[in-house]
Amino acid sequence: MIKPRTPPGVMELLPRDQIAFQRMLDVIRRNYERFGFLPVETPVFELSEVLLTKTGGETERQVYFVQSTGSLEQGGQPELALRFDLTVPLARYVAEHEHDLAFPFRRYQIQRVYRGERAQRGRFREFYQCDIDVIGKDTLSVRHDAEMPAVIHAVFTELGVGPFTIQLNNRKLLRGFFEGLGIAEGERQALVLREIDKIDKRGAVAVRATLVGGDFGLSDDVADRILAFVQVRSTSHADALAKLVALGQGSGILNEGVAELREVLELLKAHGVPEANYALNFSIARGLDYYTGTVYETTLNDHPQIGSVCSGGRYENLASSYTKSKLPGVGISIGATRLFWQLREAGIISTAESSVEVMVGLMDEARLSDSLDIARRLRAGGINAEVQLEAKKLAKQFQYADRAGIRFVVLYGDDEATRDVVKVKDLKSQEQFEVGREELAAALKVELEQQRAMGAR
Amino acid sequence: MIKPRTPPGVMELLPRDQIAFQRMLDVIRRNYERFGFLPVETPVFELSEVLLTKTGGETERQVYFVQSTGSLEQGGQPELALRFDLTVPLARYVAEHEHDLAFPFRRYQIQRVYRGERAQRGRFREFYQCDIDVIGKDTLSVRHDAEMPAVIHAVFTELGVGPFTIQLNNRKLLRGFFEGLGIAEGERQALVLREIDKIDKRGAVAVRATLVGGDFGLSDDVADRILAFVQVRSTSHADALAKLVALGQGSGILNEGVAELREVLELLKAHGVPEANYALNFSIARGLDYYTGTVYETTLNDHPQIGSVCSGGRYENLASSYTKSKLPGVGISIGATRLFWQLREAGIISTAESSVEVMVGLMDEARLSDSLDIARRLRAGGINAEVQLEAKKLAKQFQYADRAGIRFVVLYGDDEATRDVVKVKDLKSQEQFEVGREELAAALKVELEQQRAMGAR
Repeated sequence: MIKPRTPPGVMELLPRDQIAFQRMLDVIRRNYERFGFLPVETPVFELSEVLLTKTGGETERQVYFVQSTGSLEQGGQPELALRFDLTVPLARYVAEHEHDLAFPFRRYQIQRVYRGERAQRGRFREFYQCDIDVIGKDTLSVRHDAEMPAVIHAVFTELGVGPFTIQLNNRKLLRGFFEGLGIAEGERQALVLREIDKIDKRGAVAVRATLVGGDFGLSDDVADRILAFVQVRSTSHADALAKLVALGQGSGILNEGVAELREVLELLKAHGVPEANYALNFSIARGLDYYTGTVYETTLNDHPQIGSVCSGGRYENLASSYTKSKLPGVGISIGATRLFWQLREAGIISTAESSVEVMVGLMDEARLSDSLDIARRLRAGGINAEVQLEAKKLAKQFQYADRAGIRFVVLYGDDEATRDVVKVKDLKSQEQFEVGREELAAALKVELEQQRAMGAR
Repeated sequence: MIKPRTPPGVMELLPRDQIAFQRMLDVIRRNYERFGFLPVETPVFELSEVLLTKTGGETERQVYFVQSTGSLEQGGQPELALRFDLTVPLARYVAEHEHDLAFPFRRYQIQRVYRGERAQRGRFREFYQCDIDVIGKDTLSVRHDAEMPAVIHAVFTELGVGPFTIQLNNRKLLRGFFEGLGIAEGERQALVLREIDKIDKRGAVAVRATLVGGDFGLSDDVADRILAFVQVRSTSHADALAKLVALGQGSGILNEGVAELREVLELLKAHGVPEANYALNFSIARGLDYYTGTVYETTLNDHPQIGSVCSGGRYENLASSYTKSKLPGVGISIGATRLFWQLREAGIISTAESSVEVMVGLMDEARLSDSLDIARRLRAGGINAEVQLEAKKLAKQFQYADRAGIRFVVLYGDDEATRDVVKVKDLKSQEQFEVGREELAAALKVELEQQRAMGAR
């Protein structure tokens, strides 16, 4: 006998949690589709040679390699590896199918990715990423950069996770600002920004001390200006525009960054995103070697400890490893597994009601055919129904429905048959009513839709 | 530069094919949920020790093993392996979570599985399986065996793949029949059935010759009775019942099989499954070492060459490797990747219309805000909309929508603005109409629902 268990670092859910998680994925997918993104799925594994174009580094050390039994026995090197994100597969996909795709190419992809992370609470080796990207050919208007926050707004509003803020910044603005201070080299900017990232943990005073200390050797004035700059947060749409004006004229690159952010802000308003849901945050940098323009992070106002729940940005060229075509893009990603885990830990989401909406109870073996017919009508009416196939004690049947999170129990015995009605018990409100057998599906549809409209899950 | 390509044996689709495939998965999922099955997802990999409880054999040779970079460098044996079906993970899941689950446990699972098959046209190394199973604790009423064909009927009706037949048989009936002929040993029954399976290819005469030949040495009479038996097909509900009666009384096991099939047939009728969609077929055996009662195969009447598109059956004990609890079950599986590929090859399904329902065109840069507002209203009305963010030539915008398979193009220029209307062009019917800006979403919703109701995809 072997002990049944999963490998460490995976999130496996009981059915009612899986239903809650599935609803989260459905909300994300529905909103991605609303904004006109097209579905793409790629294989879980890629050829190692194709996946690992940039050898070495942290990323590769975390890769899972895949080998068939035959290849393993021959002692060869693994030809396959599990994807560690959805960006490299997207690059490969777009380059491979370039001539069959229409640009700007708008795709969404909701699949699991794999990283050999050290096992740790809340860290997953297998997790869902939910990505959208718009890929241009040669050029891509900055107008697309404003679509991303509009999608984020739609998704997180429907997820119902409380107030949230989409934080905006622009890498060109960052670059221009640092160059203006004489910190021109990209590597050095990155090191400074890495220190800046520690402000929350170490405090501004300690970080400032590091910046003026031996390794960096910045002047007091430069350190002060950096600290003031990275603490800029806008408090409204007008304030965001004012904060951009306050930067004044600078280098070409700074001015470009300012102009792009201004356009994004204006279009965000046109998209109808409420100003409470976005803000400038000049400390946001994201992957410095990858993003080149607008960058995004999203935080839950009441749960800052969760960190960013949706991030992304604009990049210059998606697939330089695979094609000579220049493919600029902009995209965002939601790490749904970690998000779900964190929201559950924070008590923001809980176990869902069952996806089974109605249980048809069985009072009498002789009524089984009636039960099946009632269930058939419910299903034809778009209601998820389960049938009790054995006439166990009624109390047991109710207990089962209650534990399973099924809201309605329907009963049809001799008494009901005489009057051609069905008895309905609402386990949530504890109310009970009767309805004509023919009208059952329509009546329950109304009840269930009322519940949905009231936002109950 | 590295050539972008997928590993052999995977099905990667362009967006419009992916949309068609996604719709197939959605239909399957929706119907599984209608019948009260609960979602489960398991990790793509399991501990090798847990997955490969039965060592050796064809299955293990096809397994993909997984190793992190660190483990590979240390030269260790892989601790992880990709799942090759959804049954072993289900067994592990039920055994692991036994005390948290309510029985009978009804789960559906739609995930990809991995097999190191020899690369071959139409054979996949990564493919979706869409499974449902009902698992009982200690016992499980045969009544659940009738739910499976009811679900198959619902799924394949909605998939719209033409007439289909769910073929039913029962392993007990098969066993009883063979025992009655003196072929009592399971291994020998299996060998005979394997020959029987070749009737379509080799013809009845050749198979009969093998059965009476040296290896089997059956008498002419026995061979004739076997050939007559396995060619039994019922032509209606009444005929199916008559075919069971015609078997007469036999051994206990034969009578049990007959009684079970009779109950399944009667409940199928109560489920409202039309008699044209099911039939007895005494040649169906399925995995002989696994199934013990009812067995199913489903064939498309007009495309017999495709073989079974949905199969399954009843088994005695799901998880004997992991738990002492007796867990009988019944289930079915749809191999969606292969099914989609075959349906496309057979011309039964084709590239879908886009999931984007409306493209908001842009005639004039100054109207971009209006476009975004129009799109916002469409999306709020539940319509998937994409916005042209640049005022390219209108002909180009229409060409883009047409190629992308987007049905409606919406235009709002100065002329429309003056009259507060929106111009709508239906690229399918080539009709054009105007509608008030406020009424646009509602009007298009009606058009799109009419189309859906007409069964067009």
